[in-house]
Amino acid sequence: MMRIQDVVITPIAFADPPLLNSAGVHEPWALRAVVELRCGDGLVGLGETYGDAPHLALLRAVAPALTGLDPFDTNGLLRRIRAVLGDADTPDRHGLTGGSTPQKTALRVLSPFEVACLDLQGQLVGRPVVDLLGGRVRDEVPYSAYLFYKWAGHPGAAEDEYGPALDPDGIVAQARLLVERYGFGSIKLKGGVLPPEQEVEAIHALRAAFPAHPLRIDPNAAWTVETSLRVAAETDGLLEYLEDPTPGIPGMAEVARGATMPLATNMCVVSPDDLPEGFGQRAVGVVLADHHYWGGLRRSAELAATCRAWGVGVSMHSNSHLGISLAAMTHLGAALPELSYAADTHAPWQYGEDVLAEPLRIVDGAVRVPDAPGLGVRLDPDALARLHENYLRCGIRERDDTAYLRSIDPTFEKRRPRW
Amino acid sequence: MMRIQDVVITPIAFADPPLLNSAGVHEPWALRAVVELRCGDGLVGLGETYGDAPHLALLRAVAPALTGLDPFDTNGLLRRIRAVLGDADTPDRHGLTGGSTPQKTALRVLSPFEVACLDLQGQLVGRPVVDLLGGRVRDEVPYSAYLFYKWAGHPGAAEDEYGPALDPDGIVAQARLLVERYGFGSIKLKGGVLPPEQEVEAIHALRAAFPAHPLRIDPNAAWTVETSLRVAAETDGLLEYLEDPTPGIPGMAEVARGATMPLATNMCVVSPDDLPEGFGQRAVGVVLADHHYWGGLRRSAELAATCRAWGVGVSMHSNSHLGISLAAMTHLGAALPELSYAADTHAPWQYGEDVLAEPLRIVDGAVRVPDAPGLGVRLDPDALARLHENYLRCGIRERDDTAYLRSIDPTFEKRRPRW
Repeated sequence: MMRIQDVVITPIAFADPPLLNSAGVHEPWALRAVVELRCGDGLVGLGETYGDAPHLALLRAVAPALTGLDPFDTNGLLRRIRAVLGDADTPDRHGLTGGSTPQKTALRVLSPFEVACLDLQGQLVGRPVVDLLGGRVRDEVPYSAYLFYKWAGHPGAAEDEYGPALDPDGIVAQARLLVERYGFGSIKLKGGVLPPEQEVEAIHALRAAFPAHPLRIDPNAAWTVETSLRVAAETDGLLEYLEDPTPGIPGMAEVARGATMPLATNMCVVSPDDLPEGFGQRAVGVVLADHHYWGGLRRSAELAATCRAWGVGVSMHSNSHLGISLAAMTHLGAALPELSYAADTHAPWQYGEDVLAEPLRIVDGAVRVPDAPGLGVRLDPDALARLHENYLRCGIRERDDTAYLRSIDPTFEKRRPRW
Repeated sequence: MMRIQDVVITPIAFADPPLLNSAGVHEPWALRAVVELRCGDGLVGLGETYGDAPHLALLRAVAPALTGLDPFDTNGLLRRIRAVLGDADTPDRHGLTGGSTPQKTALRVLSPFEVACLDLQGQLVGRPVVDLLGGRVRDEVPYSAYLFYKWAGHPGAAEDEYGPALDPDGIVAQARLLVERYGFGSIKLKGGVLPPEQEVEAIHALRAAFPAHPLRIDPNAAWTVETSLRVAAETDGLLEYLEDPTPGIPGMAEVARGATMPLATNMCVVSPDDLPEGFGQRAVGVVLADHHYWGGLRRSAELAATCRAWGVGVSMHSNSHLGISLAAMTHLGAALPELSYAADTHAPWQYGEDVLAEPLRIVDGAVRVPDAPGLGVRLDPDALARLHENYLRCGIRERDDTAYLRSIDPTFEKRRPRW
């Protein structure tokens, strides 16, 4: 029987534009880690996860415990991870995914290894991962255009290929660029950056420019309950959902009671522990599942099943990522009958960079589910080496959007809510 | 790629002792249906389900729609079933599993086909079903001794091998028989048959005879809230859980607030639709999952994941069944980290009858998880033919414990609650 013989964890960095959010601004380099589970005979399972130092330290701590594991034994995988981690917790500095707990930390560590195990299972049985998750309910998984307020370029650097977006015109121009290039059929605006009235103005401008595109805004909990309710009223009929307007389940529940559109979250219901309160208080109408912190693809499917029982919609959240994550999201999204919205992805922001030999492409706003066994993607070793070099040289070891913005604007303070 | 070529559904009947419950008494024959999904080259996937006529009619109605299906495509399986069934509902006459809805009916029809698909998947990839559910967290799945008040034999027939049990001494003797034969480490008493004070007396007698065995009682909702609370007080410290003392989620929630032991259910939380209210009201501390109506093994695992998030325990419910169901339960039970109690099984009551070539055995109160691919069991065609002959001759087409008891005692009425 095939067993995991070797676990290789490679931190990488890739260029990231100055995308603004309520915590600050993306640094020039985004970090990730690529996980390879090697079984011998060239059989390798792939996973992708965060590359921040505290997380990387946990990945490396558990790696030796995984040799000898049967890739079908994902229960054993979590058991081994828990045995190593104990109550370890790696707090989420930027707080853009709702903080951390030891439970969430364990699931975050589990995720890339679980994905890699499913990749191995699929290769071993000659089936794409989607078939191990119950079979495809769709051949293509829709993604949304993910708009950001941004500077023209990083300070001191040339203007990047995406250009500036600091007002409604800039946002609409950005949307046109992304929709033209990728055919996106839905649009999400990352908010929480400018005063809410300016962001509402951007939503109205997007609606005028894209009369038929479903729209969403995500201020990352930058607003008070009162502000959230005011924005909800001012965007009545314009949004398919309003994402994380305000911090915490009680606040979200209060907004949900007064808003006409459903609220979505990847900040207040972020681990199984949050479900009873979050669903019990009817704080959210859509959970943005993220297999990177819900413990992988099977547990994300379980989350979707729970959402179905509670009548809560499902979509997917994204941080800056490359192609292994996009493949994993696509297999998951293809297997979930309850995927009720186009998923988020940062993919278009990475300058076409990837670690894959044949990157997945977004066409007509969707990614076709790979047919090949497992995830259906292969590493490009040269690209991996190059991105690892970036990591070694870039000097960034932990994402800190706040510190980076404060290095440019010392008056900036992260506040949630801010308005 | 292997596809389902042929769907064979065989109703069977096997002798059943006169086991009493709050709905009446088991008839002389219990009905089941064996499902075979045949893919050619001798590859067959097995499932087992209810054999009642309305359910059988639905199984037969969907069967033609399943040819050509990829056994990995369980999402497609449900889609095809839903397309045939529409809003069909087959009410649950005895009500021992909590009534029915179109949703539950579809999941009940799905179940044997899903199990058979997993059996096929396992055979195709050379792995036991437990590995397709995340891998074994235990090598043996514990079952409980399932005690019943019963007559010495069916009216007009000789005394059966189990003998009578109509008082505490009879119940203790039955427990000794089952514990001696099978090594059970937990004991469940089916109650709701005699006035509650007599059943409480039986629990005390069992505790005296088996000081270390976890005990439970299940009156199938025969008690009012007041009676339930009284029994809970009188069995304080004696029960690991109290199962379905009273009908409905609000009543169960009221009992739960006043009882020291957790309440278990397979009557008030019986489908995904029941979860929000049941868990929201904290009506139950243990869900007795039953893959026969939760839609198969994967959906039962999803249920267990939901239970884990809400801090609710998990065990398994049983109706009269044979070895395919026991194998399916055992694979599921072996894969669930959250299985917190020994599962129910009626297996010891079927006079050693089975459809399997090599029936699974209960040793030391547990069933060893089969290692062979798929469910790891094979049909005995002669036994299947014999049990199908029983079905053709027995005259019973739908389980009706109430009518059978009324044929013997015309004054009997099914009432929930009765006391």
